[in-house]
Amino acid sequence: MRFIIQRDHLVQSVQDVMKAVTSRTTIPILTGIKIVATEEGVTLTGSDSDISIESFIPKEEDDKEIVEIKQPGAIVLQARFFSEMVKKLPSDFVEIEVQNHLQTVIRSGNSEFDLIGLDAEEYPQLPQIEEENVFRIPTDLLKAMIRQTSFAVSTSETRPILTGVNWKVENNELYCIATDSHRLALRKAKIEMETPANYNVVIPGKSLNELSKILADNNEQIEIVITENQVLFKAKHLLFFSRLLEGNYPDTSRLIPNESKTEIVLHTKEFLHAIDRASLLAREGKNNVVKFSTIGDGVLEISSNTPEVGKVVEELKGVSVDGEELKISFSAKYMMDALKAIEGNEIKILFTGAMRPFVIYPINDDSTLQLILPVRTY
Amino acid sequence: MRFIIQRDHLVQSVQDVMKAVTSRTTIPILTGIKIVATEEGVTLTGSDSDISIESFIPKEEDDKEIVEIKQPGAIVLQARFFSEMVKKLPSDFVEIEVQNHLQTVIRSGNSEFDLIGLDAEEYPQLPQIEEENVFRIPTDLLKAMIRQTSFAVSTSETRPILTGVNWKVENNELYCIATDSHRLALRKAKIEMETPANYNVVIPGKSLNELSKILADNNEQIEIVITENQVLFKAKHLLFFSRLLEGNYPDTSRLIPNESKTEIVLHTKEFLHAIDRASLLAREGKNNVVKFSTIGDGVLEISSNTPEVGKVVEELKGVSVDGEELKISFSAKYMMDALKAIEGNEIKILFTGAMRPFVIYPINDDSTLQLILPVRTY
Repeated sequence: MRFIIQRDHLVQSVQDVMKAVTSRTTIPILTGIKIVATEEGVTLTGSDSDISIESFIPKEEDDKEIVEIKQPGAIVLQARFFSEMVKKLPSDFVEIEVQNHLQTVIRSGNSEFDLIGLDAEEYPQLPQIEEENVFRIPTDLLKAMIRQTSFAVSTSETRPILTGVNWKVENNELYCIATDSHRLALRKAKIEMETPANYNVVIPGKSLNELSKILADNNEQIEIVITENQVLFKAKHLLFFSRLLEGNYPDTSRLIPNESKTEIVLHTKEFLHAIDRASLLAREGKNNVVKFSTIGDGVLEISSNTPEVGKVVEELKGVSVDGEELKISFSAKYMMDALKAIEGNEIKILFTGAMRPFVIYPINDDSTLQLILPVRTY
Repeated sequence: MRFIIQRDHLVQSVQDVMKAVTSRTTIPILTGIKIVATEEGVTLTGSDSDISIESFIPKEEDDKEIVEIKQPGAIVLQARFFSEMVKKLPSDFVEIEVQNHLQTVIRSGNSEFDLIGLDAEEYPQLPQIEEENVFRIPTDLLKAMIRQTSFAVSTSETRPILTGVNWKVENNELYCIATDSHRLALRKAKIEMETPANYNVVIPGKSLNELSKILADNNEQIEIVITENQVLFKAKHLLFFSRLLEGNYPDTSRLIPNESKTEIVLHTKEFLHAIDRASLLAREGKNNVVKFSTIGDGVLEISSNTPEVGKVVEELKGVSVDGEELKISFSAKYMMDALKAIEGNEIKILFTGAMRPFVIYPINDDSTLQLILPVRTY
């Protein structure tokens, strides 16, 4: 193998596939990046066996040469070291050459690195996915859907299925649902699909977060293929594979109340900042719980009391406050997470009583829903 | 005590004194910030008993009112919580009022915090320093002197005196010297002093780093007072006290060679980057040592070889290479630290043999000196 490549393209691709590489792996070769040079260009692969990322650097793009392939071939190089090195090389061009016995020479300007690589034949094969049925969604929408749901997955391995996000495809709509059993986040959106099909799978939250990090912020279509135990995301020159979680995701639809007794509309940021201040004291105590109550004239009170430290009282004017009086307690952290995930200047909160889950929507938009279970204190 | 203060002034002062506050203290009241209101303004104090910082907010500045004092008084409030809180208050003004029994109310906009404070009488007194003899130095020069020396202090407590920077005042010149016994950094500068005096003290490296963080980047004069066991830095509205280290600092002047056999001039950045790349591989091995040798025609070779990982060779054209041939090994980290501390595009390195300490100067400037002891490998 021997090729000369533009350094900035190599740096970007290495950075992308590095998202899948971990040093805590039981398979030593996975601490490496696989580099394959063909007549078409160079393909890099990183994997931790749960997530695999493949990045392709074409020989040419927009009539400009990016890679000059001198001799096709393949090698695996130690990932952490290789990624540090390519960032620091002195010239805009890098030559990578595999000599006899996996010995690899990397040249750039007056720098020359001699590395001992690993045999690319020993690198695990990526899952073979037949692209029978593909659906499409713009990249920025996909990133928003991940951001608005994946924070709510469980971080505990007690119920492993809850560490994933439930993806359901029904009637050309994608539903993303995450819950840790104390709160729930839901986001839905229309998708493009040639042959209508239904899916109900669970994608690890970690996989979606890593995917989100490497996707560019644009509205190009991402292709998504779901199989029995894998999901594949296809962007331009990028393949992202993740295994799916095994098991049945709980039916969450019954959790969401379909009536309400108190309906409050608030400015999102004002409410977020008031909760943030109230939670400063709540954090000093054991839990992170604040009290929320209607005090008449459309005014809300948010308070927190930690004996021996002190107390805080925040007053907030609602845009509108309708229905029954309310006194409820909830986790300040869950509320702040939910408010940060909601787009829009105003939110609507629907309560059905101090002991019942309540639901937060952006105003005039039912594509996003955040649900929080209250805490018993009153 | 009761006063109303502009929030941004309070936030800045709290941030400054927080630099001295640590949660790991054996004196519980030092986890707090002392707040004292007088007719002149508000003084905040933070201390970890090694470092004490006092920040004064005057009643008025440039004919604008900053604080409205309603009633003088004093209180100590829990530092971490108070500093978080003031940053998040909703209005541009903050009212702080101590009611009966140390209960303190903080109001801003529609937020009201009730905190239980501590008795300011119990807060330790700051050292009383008689300002007999003061010397002056511009803030930006002081910060440069700290930056160029304090990195070289020892991090080990084996010889506690080496964890400090040796400050010597002789003939209206200040010498700052730091060494961990493997390398040494020296910086000198003229100072302003009314009555000539000599000093030889050791200031903890940590104190100087914290001082550097809170000083603004300007050329206003800082006043410095050195006593038997304390040093005081006086900037505008800011007092910074540090204890001195006890013991005698070793005489470092004999370490610095006054002749040379090989003299090399290099571009600082080119050299820094080459060392950085070579050290990538060196770090994989046990130590972080690179080899440096003259290879003729004014060219230098920097290399590093780690069995089982690989090797790297960097070639670098010197601006000038004079004197005897040289093969020497040294710590890449120490060299990078030294190069980062030197101002100027070109450096001169004076070698007196592979086993002798060598010295790095910025070109045409003898106010800074970096010395490194080589490592025996050749």
